[in-house]
Amino acid sequence: MRKYVCEWIGTFFLMLTVGCCVIAPPPGVVAPLAIGSALMVMVFAGGHLSGGHYNPAVTLGVWLRGRCSIQDLVPYWIAQGAGAILASVAAQAIKGNVPVVRMTLSVGPALLAEFLFTFALVYVVLNTATAKGTTGNSFYGLAIGMTVMVGAFAAGSVSGGAFNPAVAIGLGWIGLIAWPNLALYWITELLAGAFAAWIFLGLNPKDR
Amino acid sequence: MRKYVCEWIGTFFLMLTVGCCVIAPPPGVVAPLAIGSALMVMVFAGGHLSGGHYNPAVTLGVWLRGRCSIQDLVPYWIAQGAGAILASVAAQAIKGNVPVVRMTLSVGPALLAEFLFTFALVYVVLNTATAKGTTGNSFYGLAIGMTVMVGAFAAGSVSGGAFNPAVAIGLGWIGLIAWPNLALYWITELLAGAFAAWIFLGLNPKDR
Amino acid sequence: MRKYVCEWIGTFFLMLTVGCCVIAPPPGVVAPLAIGSALMVMVFAGGHLSGGHYNPAVTLGVWLRGRCSIQDLVPYWIAQGAGAILASVAAQAIKGNVPVVRMTLSVGPALLAEFLFTFALVYVVLNTATAKGTTGNSFYGLAIGMTVMVGAFAAGSVSGGAFNPAVAIGLGWIGLIAWPNLALYWITELLAGAFAAWIFLGLNPKDR
Amino acid sequence: MRKYVCEWIGTFFLMLTVGCCVIAPPPGVVAPLAIGSALMVMVFAGGHLSGGHYNPAVTLGVWLRGRCSIQDLVPYWIAQGAGAILASVAAQAIKGNVPVVRMTLSVGPALLAEFLFTFALVYVVLNTATAKGTTGNSFYGLAIGMTVMVGAFAAGSVSGGAFNPAVAIGLGWIGLIAWPNLALYWITELLAGAFAAWIFLGLNPKDR
Repeated sequence: MRKYVCEWIGTFFLMLTVGCCVIAPPPGVVAPLAIGSALMVMVFAGGHLSGGHYNPAVTLGVWLRGRCSIQDLVPYWIAQGAGAILASVAAQAIKGNVPVVRMTLSVGPALLAEFLFTFALVYVVLNTATAKGTTGNSFYGLAIGMTVMVGAFAAGSVSGGAFNPAVAIGLGWIGLIAWPNLALYWITELLAGAFAAWIFLGLNPKDR
Repeated sequence: MRKYVCEWIGTFFLMLTVGCCVIAPPPGVVAPLAIGSALMVMVFAGGHLSGGHYNPAVTLGVWLRGRCSIQDLVPYWIAQGAGAILASVAAQAIKGNVPVVRMTLSVGPALLAEFLFTFALVYVVLNTATAKGTTGNSFYGLAIGMTVMVGAFAAGSVSGGAFNPAVAIGLGWIGLIAWPNLALYWITELLAGAFAAWIFLGLNPKDR
Repeated sequence: MRKYVCEWIGTFFLMLTVGCCVIAPPPGVVAPLAIGSALMVMVFAGGHLSGGHYNPAVTLGVWLRGRCSIQDLVPYWIAQGAGAILASVAAQAIKGNVPVVRMTLSVGPALLAEFLFTFALVYVVLNTATAKGTTGNSFYGLAIGMTVMVGAFAAGSVSGGAFNPAVAIGLGWIGLIAWPNLALYWITELLAGAFAAWIFLGLNPKDR
Repeated sequence: MRKYVCEWIGTFFLMLTVGCCVIAPPPGVVAPLAIGSALMVMVFAGGHLSGGHYNPAVTLGVWLRGRCSIQDLVPYWIAQGAGAILASVAAQAIKGNVPVVRMTLSVGPALLAEFLFTFALVYVVLNTATAKGTTGNSFYGLAIGMTVMVGAFAAGSVSGGAFNPAVAIGLGWIGLIAWPNLALYWITELLAGAFAAWIFLGLNPKDR
């Protein structure tokens, strides 16, 4: 139960930062830095409690890699989604319920960007936070958070830069992404997480 | 006594940076980066001496969590407040005593923002700097400082982004916050610190 | 073989970030931060697998320093080049195949900048990731990635800020650098890598 | 001798970054980030060789604190100054020998800013890189480099943000600071370094 509360808190503050940066004033160059850093600090704060996923695609990858039990999978997803929704409400309470301009989505490039950077994110998580070769390091949160920042700088204008099904829900709530597109984000991101776990196990055969 | 001097120095440089970034030229996108980094470097420099709080809400949370003695509580608060006030004077000496435009405060959203991000700050402090599960890490200062940066990016335009009763005093001195609102900031921030300590103890039962 | 896949993945994401930041919208102040951070996260993720070079000049320097076998040299270079080319294609698929304005190159200053900052990069890699004096540290990825960021901030407008023959290929593909200039970049960067290895061995005589 | 070469290299790249960011295009919001990061990467790269000072005021403070021999003091200063001058020439070769607009200096605020942030820098160096209480950490370079970034953000527009007599020479060479003012910078910065050493020894009595 404590793990789920930790996932709830971490996803809440990640999405709260996303929401506050997306709602007016419009996102400037600092949104990726703020969002990546929010993930970083919550990973550093909660990694010893729940693993610090805050992202259903990460939880899927960590489960496939063998560091998350099957009983935790769905409760983690529920905690992450619930945290993201409440955070969207809180962001609107703080910034005002300002209408957000919906992104004009070019589906192919957007899903390619979401796939590639969600893959990168889960690849970085598995290698820095679950691999024997990097045990005891002090950089996992920095590496994980800044991967999201990089993706948001590189492709945020194309896909919205979610790389995270829970954040995608929040972006739908706030209005940046249309609800019908949400399923496409989820499928793409979860596939990327599973693919990253498969690549990780191939590259780290002794870690199975 | 050495601990109090260290708290005084750290809060001085935190508030000096805040003050220099708030007084003309007006705060741009870099103020949150500068302020969060100022906290980071002072936490790294003084953590082994005083714990590196530089924030009465953090000191309250650390005391409730059991890592600060009751005799230190009030001296820490005095050192932090004194450091913030002198730093405000120093910032005015450096940048010129330019009139600062007072924030037009929307009380509800501002206090919500101060509560949430002060909670996040104390939650991060307790988990990265006082938890058994993260002992010996090299990231506590980065995590703590960047939490303030995230909060300032997300909600600085709403509340001023103090998340710290000592900094709130400094912002009152410089003129960004009206004196009558100061008590609201203090109560909100101290409540958030206490709440974070309570959540921390629930999530880390072996750390009591 | 696993090492080469890791080098391929890391160089792919480094160049993907470069490409997405170079193709419209034009590079702003964030490109160096994004690119340096992309290198950082991939070094943290893959350092335990392949050494995390992602750069033929780094591989040359690490080989001369004695931490990379001669059999790995060419496969590493091929993996890095292939990753950079595919990433350039992927960046065009994400951002659109927008014509990029070719840099007007002042050859002397550009090659001086490429030499100096490629030297700095390999010097930092060898000292933070292969020296006995810094064994077991958690900062190598941060130091390496931010060296590229510094070089790109300082001299990106002069040379394009490659500091990496594989990235130079990608910049040629995208159109920022003219193909005939590519050989100049390669020679300059490889010379800088070799010179950094020579200096490193002089400064760390016990590490031979 | 190796130590002096390392100090020369590190100060060279610090000042090269300063110079490239000061010469046209004019310094934007990124100059402090670039300069602080240049110091960070060179401290991480050379700390195990020479201590990674790259700053005569730091060398003075480290000597007073007892971690630098008296025979090294003047050679370190010479290496730092020589590195800064050659770097200024290199920066002009890369960026073009563009006339730099001299700062209009308000002496009192400028020297106050230089004193306070040079103090902060040496205080952070001594506590993170020479104190028993922080032995073996992986954050010293981050803390040291970001202190300079913070100072440059806070007071760069007032004093030029040198916090370093060797960098002050470089700023004189490039033309940002008038030569007659240089002695004021040196005296102020060296006093700040000595004061920081005195405070450090008071706060860390067991480290004497």
